[in-house]
Amino acid sequence: MPLTFEILATDGEARRGRLITPHGVVETPAFMPVGTLGAVKGVTPQELEAAGASILLSNLYHLALRPGIDTVERLGGLHAFAGWRRPILTDSGGFQVWSLGGLRTVDVDGVTFRSHLDGSALRFTPEGVVSLQERMGVDVAMVLDECTTWPVERAAAAASWERTLEWARRARAAWQGGPGGLFGIVQGSVYPDLRERAAREVAALDFDGYAIGGVAVGEPLAERRAVVEWTAPALPADRPRYLMGVGYPADILHAVASGVDLFDCVLPARNARHGVLFTRRGTLKIKNARFKDDPLPLDEECGCPACARTSRAFLHHLFRCGELTAAVLATLHNVRYYLDFMAEIRQAIGLGALTDRLARRTTGEDSPEGPDLEVLPVSSDPREQRSN
Amino acid sequence: MPLTFEILATDGEARRGRLITPHGVVETPAFMPVGTLGAVKGVTPQELEAAGASILLSNLYHLALRPGIDTVERLGGLHAFAGWRRPILTDSGGFQVWSLGGLRTVDVDGVTFRSHLDGSALRFTPEGVVSLQERMGVDVAMVLDECTTWPVERAAAAASWERTLEWARRARAAWQGGPGGLFGIVQGSVYPDLRERAAREVAALDFDGYAIGGVAVGEPLAERRAVVEWTAPALPADRPRYLMGVGYPADILHAVASGVDLFDCVLPARNARHGVLFTRRGTLKIKNARFKDDPLPLDEECGCPACARTSRAFLHHLFRCGELTAAVLATLHNVRYYLDFMAEIRQAIGLGALTDRLARRTTGEDSPEGPDLEVLPVSSDPREQRSN
Repeated sequence: MPLTFEILATDGEARRGRLITPHGVVETPAFMPVGTLGAVKGVTPQELEAAGASILLSNLYHLALRPGIDTVERLGGLHAFAGWRRPILTDSGGFQVWSLGGLRTVDVDGVTFRSHLDGSALRFTPEGVVSLQERMGVDVAMVLDECTTWPVERAAAAASWERTLEWARRARAAWQGGPGGLFGIVQGSVYPDLRERAAREVAALDFDGYAIGGVAVGEPLAERRAVVEWTAPALPADRPRYLMGVGYPADILHAVASGVDLFDCVLPARNARHGVLFTRRGTLKIKNARFKDDPLPLDEECGCPACARTSRAFLHHLFRCGELTAAVLATLHNVRYYLDFMAEIRQAIGLGALTDRLARRTTGEDSPEGPDLEVLPVSSDPREQRSN
Repeated sequence: MPLTFEILATDGEARRGRLITPHGVVETPAFMPVGTLGAVKGVTPQELEAAGASILLSNLYHLALRPGIDTVERLGGLHAFAGWRRPILTDSGGFQVWSLGGLRTVDVDGVTFRSHLDGSALRFTPEGVVSLQERMGVDVAMVLDECTTWPVERAAAAASWERTLEWARRARAAWQGGPGGLFGIVQGSVYPDLRERAAREVAALDFDGYAIGGVAVGEPLAERRAVVEWTAPALPADRPRYLMGVGYPADILHAVASGVDLFDCVLPARNARHGVLFTRRGTLKIKNARFKDDPLPLDEECGCPACARTSRAFLHHLFRCGELTAAVLATLHNVRYYLDFMAEIRQAIGLGALTDRLARRTTGEDSPEGPDLEVLPVSSDPREQRSN
């Protein structure tokens, strides 16, 4: 087996695990920072390691457009190309192709789309997508799926699932064995029976892990959480479970409590670039004038490069001046915040204390600074959590 | 004395020295990366230290506009504000105010200018500028000077020097003693007798160090080098000499050989953001298609985060995609290149081998890769070396 997954402890449905890959071990539940093109925006590979990232997510779709998979392969695979030595998971491109809307056409054999860059035509097939990811040498490859939009009629969601299941079968058959593992993806929109059937059917194909796709595409928070609650427990207990593209810390905590092990989201990095910073006491909109003279670090319990050296006032200053270092320091902070949050989650599961220890933290209710800190809603438009 | 300067070795006019400041030791000749607003664009303080920077240059003019010196002082001074623990030199704003052209008026008591940001009026006086820098707690403060434009008539340059000298006297008298030291500035445009007289007159005021200003303002390379050759040896041998705003590696080497100890320039960071990368074998325009599949590091002898992990091909890819990490990695590389270059200069002076060891390096003549690497002229428009 190219991938090994061990469960070390449980706390209700939550699992504390360990995913062993060709490029190292991922302690789960884990958050995968998003390096669409091979690097988290503004962050060196060394800094990302120092922040505690054990696995990076990249996007097949974007890499296929630029620089092209031939180039990545010639340069020794994605790890050598990007200078990242720990595990890598690549998304198959299903979500990105879905995002193209009118620029793509889906048929029974795959999807043809036009590059969002130059309009040139490309085609992804279930077999081709598997092969491209194997050629890049990633630790976890994803099958090609059709990500249903929201809202979608039940009949359309069911028909879409039939196609995605057939693609999953073809991907499984085309898989040459690695170097890494291959994950299947469950779709089914917000229909519980579809999701449960999809989980059962994809599990029968014996993938190395299973993802919950088709969430964070515009549906309300309650719908998204219901999908996770139905689907995660229906997936094989002995394989890692990955919730694609989610989300805010409260969303992650909820999903962990439902039995999910892996997460990715652009939120920490993208919010950072906009000056929205996560802290243990709430979310700071650092450009606000109230931070002009604030000598405190962004978060007094954080060990990121920004918090180790500078203040809210300095970050405020750098953002107000439009300095590049603002985005760099803010991204290092937010990514570190997410990774520290996952470490706390893992510790809490080991202690059987997940709910007690972390529930209040993610709502900001325990903030002693009250209205001085802006606490953003934990459930703003989920579409924001996925778009690049 | 708040500053101590020791000369450890000489090689012709070149000096290997050590400047001891309240925040640590600067081995000279030294290059000061430019952190106009407190940070080198795209670089954390920790990364800048790791690159080997022993002293940072910031700009009083920009900090006075944003966030304001009151804010910097309230937050504990510039070191605490910016999270930089090693020495800091601040430019007085003379050059920046000069750059404003029609937005400033100079009178005998100082300069009134309009903010380039919002048009509000500010005034710098010789005494005020000294006080602002003392309040920020910098290690080296600069006097307010009038930077003459180029070309300028001899009579106008002489009149300007009279005013700058009077301002230097007033600054010296206003100086409260630190915490750091105060440097005088020599002007005089391209007139040898004016430069020599200015050097003598400013030296008589007994500053902690002396700067050569008014170069890299548009004059030809030969004029600039002549100014350095006349002026540096005319300055007191027992004090550090600083050539403001210069330049390319070849310019720095020439000035070191003329007896200059300190340098600053925006070139390495700004060129990096444009994909122009300095290496021991020439200058790479990394966006060029020839680097698309190049597996070599930017510079095989460099230990920067980019060279330690990634290739020319990856930097090419990041630049082509407009990724933020391109600027970050490129800046870390170029700054490291300059700092390594200074370390080699210091070592060569210690060995009495400055000219032999470094002359060919800076011209690119020893590049075995010949036309595959773009070698930029060492003497492009000097104005480029100063503008922000």
